[in-house]
Amino acid sequence: MPKLYSYFRSSAAYRVRIALALKGLPYETVPVHLLRDGGEQHGAAYRAANPQALVPALQTEDGGPLLTQSLAIIEYLDEAHGGPPLLPAAPLARARVRALAQAVACDLHPLNNLRVLRYLKRDLGVSDEQKNAWYAHWVALGLGAVEQMLAGSPDTGRFCHGEAPGLADCCLVPQIYNAQRFGCPLDAYPTIGRIVAACNALPAFQQAAPERQPDAA
Amino acid sequence: MPKLYSYFRSSAAYRVRIALALKGLPYETVPVHLLRDGGEQHGAAYRAANPQALVPALQTEDGGPLLTQSLAIIEYLDEAHGGPPLLPAAPLARARVRALAQAVACDLHPLNNLRVLRYLKRDLGVSDEQKNAWYAHWVALGLGAVEQMLAGSPDTGRFCHGEAPGLADCCLVPQIYNAQRFGCPLDAYPTIGRIVAACNALPAFQQAAPERQPDAA
Repeated sequence: MPKLYSYFRSSAAYRVRIALALKGLPYETVPVHLLRDGGEQHGAAYRAANPQALVPALQTEDGGPLLTQSLAIIEYLDEAHGGPPLLPAAPLARARVRALAQAVACDLHPLNNLRVLRYLKRDLGVSDEQKNAWYAHWVALGLGAVEQMLAGSPDTGRFCHGEAPGLADCCLVPQIYNAQRFGCPLDAYPTIGRIVAACNALPAFQQAAPERQPDAA
Repeated sequence: MPKLYSYFRSSAAYRVRIALALKGLPYETVPVHLLRDGGEQHGAAYRAANPQALVPALQTEDGGPLLTQSLAIIEYLDEAHGGPPLLPAAPLARARVRALAQAVACDLHPLNNLRVLRYLKRDLGVSDEQKNAWYAHWVALGLGAVEQMLAGSPDTGRFCHGEAPGLADCCLVPQIYNAQRFGCPLDAYPTIGRIVAACNALPAFQQAAPERQPDAA
């Protein structure tokens, strides 16, 4: 059975959990606690297998390769397994879905993850107020753009692209979960709000939620 | 003819220029000067078409959609056009190449781009020394991991994956160009160094270089 190296609150691991659930693929969770003992992701064994020392990572089978990077893992699941497709078929449509996913995964999330917030605090000595302003700044910039990308396109449906959830939704839902946890106002993003509500009404998204994970605090 | 909205020094635009050159696809460069007049990417017309107000963006044809996000654009070029493939065929190999690309494009580059360095300086008031240390920190962390991913894999060849350049090389070369521009030491990354040298010996990579662009200062 595939093993997912995961941390319940990791936004990137949450994306892959959604994809696995949408595909209906069973897997074993291997918790990697990002805070305990200075971060279990920095342990020698994990680091040897995943030099980036980040979660998630997916071991496809016993002795199989360890896949890293959430978007790469999700595209792998889509290419290697049956089940509902997570990307549309036409190249232009695929480009749109990937751009939405990357607007979150490349331009928003990396600025606000744990190691960055830590660097701001420890190495740059910013105040909690400045740290929270940093967080809110990139959320507002990122979600503002994604809202426009979604609201302005006839391809947006009940979900980010059409009437079935896919790669972009896998990225959007965890990002909104995080933004809510940090108390960011979300009223300015009505399209995102209704898509996330539609996603969270589905069992696959519910199963993947942080509080449902075996390592949830 | 496709139009590429580009800035000569943008690392993300540079990736797409390499991919277009590897595919042998002619295109017209539309320069978007990221510094002039507070940033041309913030102009109303560009922003309406690309709410993220970032480069690159590719207009595939007159009146066609505007594609955004460098990795999404490169995958589109690979799916929609002939020419040498930029991704291998097997799902596990594709996952490896995408993970390498994303280790640069999601975990390294976003922390060091213009708008972030600006926020550090203007909003957090960090010194030039602190800003440079921030830059060097994420370069060292990111390239250190990529070096291990490359050096530790039998799939690494003359290029990031095997004997032909592809998506991962499109991301790696601009990142090294940037690191050199900022004076980051690169001696600790011999595998990256030899792959980048192999890439830069090819006309496609040479054509795509910042100093060869029509908008180069």
